Amino acid sequence: MKIIMLRHGQSEWNLKNLFTGWTDVDLTEEGRRQAREAGEKILKAGLKPEYYFTSYLKRAIHTLQIAAAAMNREWVPVVKDWHLNERHYGALQGHNKAETAAKYGEEQVHIWRRSYDVAPPALDASDERWPGHEEMYASLSQDELPLTESLETTIGRVRPCWEELILPALRLHDTVLVSAHGNSLRALTMMLLHLSPEEIIAEEIPTGAPQVFDLDNRLNVISRRYL
Amino acid sequence: MKIIMLRHGQSEWNLKNLFTGWTDVDLTEEGRRQAREAGEKILKAGLKPEYYFTSYLKRAIHTLQIAAAAMNREWVPVVKDWHLNERHYGALQGHNKAETAAKYGEEQVHIWRRSYDVAPPALDASDERWPGHEEMYASLSQDELPLTESLETTIGRVRPCWEELILPALRLHDTVLVSAHGNSLRALTMMLLHLSPEEIIAEEIPTGAPQVFDLDNRLNVISRRYL
Repeated sequence: MKIIMLRHGQSEWNLKNLFTGWTDVDLTEEGRRQAREAGEKILKAGLKPEYYFTSYLKRAIHTLQIAAAAMNREWVPVVKDWHLNERHYGALQGHNKAETAAKYGEEQVHIWRRSYDVAPPALDASDERWPGHEEMYASLSQDELPLTESLETTIGRVRPCWEELILPALRLHDTVLVSAHGNSLRALTMMLLHLSPEEIIAEEIPTGAPQVFDLDNRLNVISRRYL
Repeated sequence: MKIIMLRHGQSEWNLKNLFTGWTDVDLTEEGRRQAREAGEKILKAGLKPEYYFTSYLKRAIHTLQIAAAAMNREWVPVVKDWHLNERHYGALQGHNKAETAAKYGEEQVHIWRRSYDVAPPALDASDERWPGHEEMYASLSQDELPLTESLETTIGRVRPCWEELILPALRLHDTVLVSAHGNSLRALTMMLLHLSPEEIIAEEIPTGAPQVFDLDNRLNVISRRYL
């Protein structure tokens, strides 16, 4: 069995150096090119994903659609799940990374970005950036809607998707592809490889290079490679 | 409750005047423009589809993806079902419509295209055009795989999708959108409006103009309009 992880490429806010999180920005032309290239690499490697997962965010959904077209596998079933969204960046969302560093200090921003269990300042539920204001999250309970997230809490909410959707799909389908974000893919990597907090912080998920995990039938990782 | 039907626009083989059927050709640039325009019309009408259905064929899948982007509703769940594919055109698939008329006569081609229960000449299962050779249909039984289809047999195989997937979705979601093909949408129209064979033959499903059916809570059609 194989699981392929695909991290979306450049988005409009990467380009502007803004904290993005759950903000639903689109890919740039460069991001679309990266998605095409990723699909071509999967095709060339002879891999045939039979089930797709992606988040609710269009940069991951479009990455999947473009890669699927490059693989000529548009017909493959897809599940979109908000649990695979990027880590929520709280009150930092929409702010420039350089300006945030100037305001709070490089060290504080480094802690927010690189620690396991420290979350950025929380949004207030009255903030227009609060996900509860959007129709796409209207069916979620208050408890489920984040105001901010650490890597740890991100991993906590990715877990049900892993256990209830992706693992069952892997038992039925030989190859599953997940198109998502740096931190939700980190969460999956941690669960797949049983990593410690220190180890997962050191993991960098590359954009544009699909990552293939080969699993035995007890879902232990046999090998791991980048395409 | 509302059901929106969206017929894909111009494909590469429309442009070449070839019988297409289950051949998986892509949209042209004009077809993509029509899809964007359809999405913009749905958005402008204030309609908010909460569930998408489409076929296994990329011209319908891409139409849906482009319209969803124009509506800013990429996150909406989608079911892809081969039962919503275009009518299978048997041994005529891939042949030029004008040449076919020259070979078999205008009248015969008119019968194949416009009658209710006459199917074009059947493919042989050894023919490379037979769907059973494609991975996307590998899980289907021999009985399910068509060698050719009349409008009547097309309607017969669309019916399970209508009864088992679309109707249940309509009970849960206020507005459902189906992106599909001339004859599979005819099939849905026939079932929705309880039309006779003579009436459904006279139905022309427009491309690029989404059709909205308003239903009461017993799923009777109250009104029908084009956007």
